[in-house]
Amino acid sequence: MPDSAVIALDAMGGDFGPEVIVPAAAKILSRRSKLHIILVGDEERIRSCAQNHAIKLDDRLTIQHASEVVEMHDEPAMAMRKKKDSSMRVAINLVHDGKADAIVSAGNTGALMATARFVLKTLPGIDRPAICTTIPSRDGHTHMLDLGANVDCTAEHLFQFAVMGSVMTEAIDNIESPRIGLLNIGSEAMKGNAQVKAADEQLAGTPLNYIGFVEGDDIYSDKVDVVVCDGFVGNISLKTAEGVAKLISYYMKEEFKRGLYNKLAGLVALPVLRAFRKRIDPRAYNGASLLGLKGIVIKSHGGADVDAYANAIEIAVLEVNKSVPQQIQEHIQPLLERQTA
Amino acid sequence: MPDSAVIALDAMGGDFGPEVIVPAAAKILSRRSKLHIILVGDEERIRSCAQNHAIKLDDRLTIQHASEVVEMHDEPAMAMRKKKDSSMRVAINLVHDGKADAIVSAGNTGALMATARFVLKTLPGIDRPAICTTIPSRDGHTHMLDLGANVDCTAEHLFQFAVMGSVMTEAIDNIESPRIGLLNIGSEAMKGNAQVKAADEQLAGTPLNYIGFVEGDDIYSDKVDVVVCDGFVGNISLKTAEGVAKLISYYMKEEFKRGLYNKLAGLVALPVLRAFRKRIDPRAYNGASLLGLKGIVIKSHGGADVDAYANAIEIAVLEVNKSVPQQIQEHIQPLLERQTA
Repeated sequence: MPDSAVIALDAMGGDFGPEVIVPAAAKILSRRSKLHIILVGDEERIRSCAQNHAIKLDDRLTIQHASEVVEMHDEPAMAMRKKKDSSMRVAINLVHDGKADAIVSAGNTGALMATARFVLKTLPGIDRPAICTTIPSRDGHTHMLDLGANVDCTAEHLFQFAVMGSVMTEAIDNIESPRIGLLNIGSEAMKGNAQVKAADEQLAGTPLNYIGFVEGDDIYSDKVDVVVCDGFVGNISLKTAEGVAKLISYYMKEEFKRGLYNKLAGLVALPVLRAFRKRIDPRAYNGASLLGLKGIVIKSHGGADVDAYANAIEIAVLEVNKSVPQQIQEHIQPLLERQTA
Repeated sequence: MPDSAVIALDAMGGDFGPEVIVPAAAKILSRRSKLHIILVGDEERIRSCAQNHAIKLDDRLTIQHASEVVEMHDEPAMAMRKKKDSSMRVAINLVHDGKADAIVSAGNTGALMATARFVLKTLPGIDRPAICTTIPSRDGHTHMLDLGANVDCTAEHLFQFAVMGSVMTEAIDNIESPRIGLLNIGSEAMKGNAQVKAADEQLAGTPLNYIGFVEGDDIYSDKVDVVVCDGFVGNISLKTAEGVAKLISYYMKEEFKRGLYNKLAGLVALPVLRAFRKRIDPRAYNGASLLGLKGIVIKSHGGADVDAYANAIEIAVLEVNKSVPQQIQEHIQPLLERQTA
């Protein structure tokens, strides 16, 4: 049964809470007839929000009440320990108890990671979960991990990220042996730090399709399918990309406002510019996977709108149908045995 | 005397060697009447190249013969030890011997850094030189260091980079107290690694205009003047930016080729798109400073064309006129004394 799944949504998470999440849920349900979505959070608020949007609650769209909310500024460890009835925690519990197949949250990333790790635990063979997202490339896309869950990583961690990224990409993109690259700096200077060099040696000895080192610009080419790095570097690379994209769009708007000719040219070019903008729309890439856990956890951008949030739900459904955690577990075991042999 | 300076060019460095470098030298000399440029490299090749371009060698454009060339694939340490008569080494020697005020090279970055460090030495108080470049931002530009000279950095190194970046920016941009930011990851997750946290504490206690942590997207905003990071992160951020810019320009070209209307719109929008392209032209930002040495060393991109290379020479002239190394030395001493006090 392809799209049969139960998805728990942390309905209070993100900048807009149920205002975005309830309509996004309804949107996905209208597309997928075998899906059941559980909205977790303040029952009254969710109910009134559904009413305002003329969205009917039924056996495919249910509410699970939770009395607390993890705020964006909450310390991850504190949120985990003190807010045991938060929408985030209750939604994760549903996955742990087998009542949901995946959870999506647009809330505090640190709290989501800490709580998911505490409640669901990591898969055997995985030391640390990693955040993995999809990034547009020339004629397709690239998956990149870790994006901020792990600041300092050993070679062993990078190795595990590579395996997780490979398995997820194989499942999600339906491609065999995705090309794995290790993010490093240019060939001219000294080649990378000790961790990267050691991970390179480890990966070269596996049946993974490891293509070696890649550089920052390769992420956006079609040279590689999975880019592996530590969370510090990955987060800065991702934010850099956001900054550059914003800068370029700012420059472009400025140029098209400079004088009458440019304004007219801008009008003429508008449909083209719109199509272009749609192509680099980050909303189409919303939804990062917390890989390495005994359960499927998807992080939506906090500022996601209905379409973007719906996209994150779609990723959750895809991972449920492909049993990503089980597949990671199946693949990592023989590789680890090989490593220690 | 503003533009009076002697600049040594490693005329054999880069992808095109004298073919680009000799015309770039002539271009700068036509603009700056008090400048003397020494072309260092194979005398015969440089002479014939000048002839081909109808460029006259005189007392402002002279040749210093060097029999060897550092290749792009040469190991930095080997290039330094074995090629003692390379154009790169001889050009650096000219600075060391006081016969030139600065050296520009488009050659092997690792070899340039290793040789410059060996011949010129670092300034007192500076443990490691750093590579610093200019990056376009919304309504101006940002300086960023290190960009790849130092893979692993301690808090102390990051602190020194901050001082060097501040002094250079003050001198080059003619602004007082440039805003210094430390590159780190988002506020949600655990805040950065141990080095970044320790450097943050050190910087907070100085008279520098330290504004705290900045994220990857802030590099391209107008929030900060100098972005400090280790060379691994800096290099990946810079390459990421290149990759994103290339991807966006690829998408844009594709959209303007899609069907007759788009093609016509592209023609109409051409002058605007050209102005836009000029604004993000990386050639306008060519020329990275190797800061922290007892001498001025500028690295040009290996693939630089005449305009781009000329820009790197301009940066060298600017740093000579502002006595950047002397200023770094003057500023770092009291800060270090303060640190240890």
